[in-house]
Amino acid sequence: MKKAVVLLSGGLDSATTLYIAKSRGYKVNCLVFDYGQRHRREIEAAKKIARLALCPLEVLKINFPWQGSSLLDHKMSIPWGKKISKGIPSTYVPARNTVFLSFALSCAEVAGASTIFIGANALDYSGYPDCRPGFYHAFNRLSEVATKCGLEKKPIKVETPLINLKKSEIITLGLKLGVPYKATWSCYEGGSRPCGRCDSCILREKGFSEANAEDPALSATKSMADVATK
Amino acid sequence: MKKAVVLLSGGLDSATTLYIAKSRGYKVNCLVFDYGQRHRREIEAAKKIARLALCPLEVLKINFPWQGSSLLDHKMSIPWGKKISKGIPSTYVPARNTVFLSFALSCAEVAGASTIFIGANALDYSGYPDCRPGFYHAFNRLSEVATKCGLEKKPIKVETPLINLKKSEIITLGLKLGVPYKATWSCYEGGSRPCGRCDSCILREKGFSEANAEDPALSATKSMADVATK
Repeated sequence: MKKAVVLLSGGLDSATTLYIAKSRGYKVNCLVFDYGQRHRREIEAAKKIARLALCPLEVLKINFPWQGSSLLDHKMSIPWGKKISKGIPSTYVPARNTVFLSFALSCAEVAGASTIFIGANALDYSGYPDCRPGFYHAFNRLSEVATKCGLEKKPIKVETPLINLKKSEIITLGLKLGVPYKATWSCYEGGSRPCGRCDSCILREKGFSEANAEDPALSATKSMADVATK
Repeated sequence: MKKAVVLLSGGLDSATTLYIAKSRGYKVNCLVFDYGQRHRREIEAAKKIARLALCPLEVLKINFPWQGSSLLDHKMSIPWGKKISKGIPSTYVPARNTVFLSFALSCAEVAGASTIFIGANALDYSGYPDCRPGFYHAFNRLSEVATKCGLEKKPIKVETPLINLKKSEIITLGLKLGVPYKATWSCYEGGSRPCGRCDSCILREKGFSEANAEDPALSATKSMADVATK
């Protein structure tokens, strides 16, 4: 059975990617990173999603002591507004996806996996450099020379099945595949409920709206809030 | 003042690389990884070298839970013999240098450093894929698209000043630069004294011998042993 490593963040995109990998017949190992992100709640989401998908999950603890991102530095504020801001926002974590993919490459080589799946998206996204097709192309060239299996002409390949999909298309596809969106977490703030105003919340809301679907995570927290206020 | 990140392992090559970066006028931040290596002693060596070089050092704790290397897995034995074995040895840690460089890339971007120095060597080495020129060429292509500064046409560049030097040439150069070789640690076994038979010890001994120099680390432990047996 062909094997893959899936980078699971606990968000909507990576959960969909996991179900795509499964639907393609891969035996999947998932990785999630505990890297000091303020939305650590996503790690619990990743655990739940992996459990529902019946896939093993490895939680890797790393840190970026130099910070340089509002996702890591609590003294910085998360950008918010009704629209996604232009340019690269302060939530960008320098070289984060390079670090994540490097660990996935190591894991994949030891597990004998041929493929790494990552839910990067270059349409409805925050403008991060390491979510663009050129980055993944360059990483695949690196993979060919970075590992023993690469030198043996069996390089591990990074696949980005969502890279050219709109958020609504990702959701439509995921709903068909049975992705448990209720268990996913997108908000950067990491509070008890999604803030509804950070880039990640805005993109998620827009996606569900354009897909003509209700966000099960949002309706779950809404109804909890309704109960609380009654 | 131009800035650089130096990957310091505590060994002979990375210590020399640090002194090369300093001699070129860089303000240096050093990184060392505590990654579960059996020769954790090299971390203490890195601390000492950074202190002697008056450079700040960050110790990053990471792990490779999937192991896949005799440097990580204590149930595997380190290969030894009078000559370096052909092929890629069991001490190869899958994607290790990719992981190390990824963190260095993140650190460099936040610090505003233009350059990452790594003491990789492709002549007197153990045959690791990620110590070859092609790997560093590919990583530099990746760097151009992986970061914000890369997209702004100021990519961080990885430099490998030792890549085409023989071990004896590295040592001759390092002695001129005042590298404190007495503080360096090369042995993979990580015992109280160098084992003298692992690839790393063999390469070090060959290097000092061909450079017509005495290894100050070895003579230090030898004289300690002499005192102990008297």
